[in-house]
Amino acid sequence: MDQPEPPLFTGHFAVNGATRLYGTIGDPIRQLRMTGVMPQIFAAVGVNAVWLPFEGSAPLLPVMLEALAKMRNLGGFTVTIPHKSAILPLLGRATRRAQAAGSANLVKREADGTLSGDMADGAGFVAGLEAQGHRVRGASVWLVGLGGAGGAIAAALCEAKVGRLLVTELNAARADAGLDRLSRFYPDVPVASISAEHPPHGIHYAINATPLGLRPGDPLSFDPMMLDSDAVIAEVIMSPVETPLLQRARTHGRRVHHGRHMLDHQIPIYLDWFGIDSKGIDIVRLMRSIP
Amino acid sequence: MDQPEPPLFTGHFAVNGATRLYGTIGDPIRQLRMTGVMPQIFAAVGVNAVWLPFEGSAPLLPVMLEALAKMRNLGGFTVTIPHKSAILPLLGRATRRAQAAGSANLVKREADGTLSGDMADGAGFVAGLEAQGHRVRGASVWLVGLGGAGGAIAAALCEAKVGRLLVTELNAARADAGLDRLSRFYPDVPVASISAEHPPHGIHYAINATPLGLRPGDPLSFDPMMLDSDAVIAEVIMSPVETPLLQRARTHGRRVHHGRHMLDHQIPIYLDWFGIDSKGIDIVRLMRSIP
Repeated sequence: MDQPEPPLFTGHFAVNGATRLYGTIGDPIRQLRMTGVMPQIFAAVGVNAVWLPFEGSAPLLPVMLEALAKMRNLGGFTVTIPHKSAILPLLGRATRRAQAAGSANLVKREADGTLSGDMADGAGFVAGLEAQGHRVRGASVWLVGLGGAGGAIAAALCEAKVGRLLVTELNAARADAGLDRLSRFYPDVPVASISAEHPPHGIHYAINATPLGLRPGDPLSFDPMMLDSDAVIAEVIMSPVETPLLQRARTHGRRVHHGRHMLDHQIPIYLDWFGIDSKGIDIVRLMRSIP
Repeated sequence: MDQPEPPLFTGHFAVNGATRLYGTIGDPIRQLRMTGVMPQIFAAVGVNAVWLPFEGSAPLLPVMLEALAKMRNLGGFTVTIPHKSAILPLLGRATRRAQAAGSANLVKREADGTLSGDMADGAGFVAGLEAQGHRVRGASVWLVGLGGAGGAIAAALCEAKVGRLLVTELNAARADAGLDRLSRFYPDVPVASISAEHPPHGIHYAINATPLGLRPGDPLSFDPMMLDSDAVIAEVIMSPVETPLLQRARTHGRRVHHGRHMLDHQIPIYLDWFGIDSKGIDIVRLMRSIP
């Protein structure tokens, strides 16, 4: 209460003694958008639940996981910066794509009392790509950046059985660890490291998963004009809506794919993970109607 | 989500990333009224905060306390059945009246990271009595029932320096433990055990702190007509509003004091404990306007 209130998305809830609690763990948490989005989703599917900000640094994690296992009306939570990697070894179980990503952003309690984690960032990205008619299975994909978002997208692309995955990551230690995890969990998918200067021909999707483009004046992480003219140029950055990368690609007639799809398509994954029936409602369309 | 929704008081909240979390720990929790009351209080005093149900059995307590110390946007909580006694030894610090009551129902995190507990049930009762013009200091008080509510009221009466406290409690072990705590923490207040059949003359306030009167057909815990005609007959039961005890006293021209005052007068104690400025708003009057 010491700082001024941030100008944030605000949702309206009704809470009673039967309300189930969901939320996001992060630090800082004041920028959280989900508190404005999820109440509208819960209201649409008719669930008595709230989405809360849980603010805490690293020591919170083991405690929160223990509390989750014991607090019967706490349904689950998502995980944001800086906890996505740290939480993985604390979970009783994790999906293959979360293990391959080396991080988790989605946690629930199983019926047997263990805590399960998933990584929905990459799965949301892949679902968004597919929903735009861009078939991922068998495709040739170039992923630039193998940090948090990139690692998750790489795992999801392998899970979706891409034909080959080319990766550019300037941090050698991060590249080695990421490629090692991918080869362990998806030994059948050909993965290789390439330089950003000379991408080969035949790439179907080129994805920026670096933070470059968040701030005005950032250089491009790669030049989209080096790619074949039918390649789709994809972005993970949501704000600005059109990064300099997408702008350059679009103004030169290339097909582009916006960062927003990754989040919109994660929400059905959250509901599914939490066992909430979406009752046939088009959640992605609903997400698009929320500012 | 398996059981039908209870027909409960429902409050409307706005939540964003800067929202502070408050709530009540209990088991069961579906009957909780505070989720309908506190949002209206928070809105009136202009605080960005929600009041939540935290449902969990005994093993939750140590975890919740640890989480409270680490989750920076969790402001504090109240404690209800069955945790009020169990929580006391788990706190880093407790007020004298909580220690004397042997229980706590109000917890916050101090600036130094320790958790402090208070017992507001009895203090709310005493504040309610005083607000009706019934002076407690120096008075002669008869308290029937030394369970959870009775123990808290006994401690608050001693804290408020009653002239003498007479107690009736049929469970001998509970009576012994309660009287022992009172004599340790308030050695200057004369406290004695009496039978319900023969209260002495000179009693100013006679209080039912037993559950008798909650259910239709319950016997009276004492006969108000045995008391001097100027004695005030007080109740801790909130529902029904007029218990058979109060009805008998009222229809015979005795002064009565309703159970509702105890809760209404606890809310200013909560705000004060949590360090929330009530900004000159008459919180008790506001409470009375909430159904």
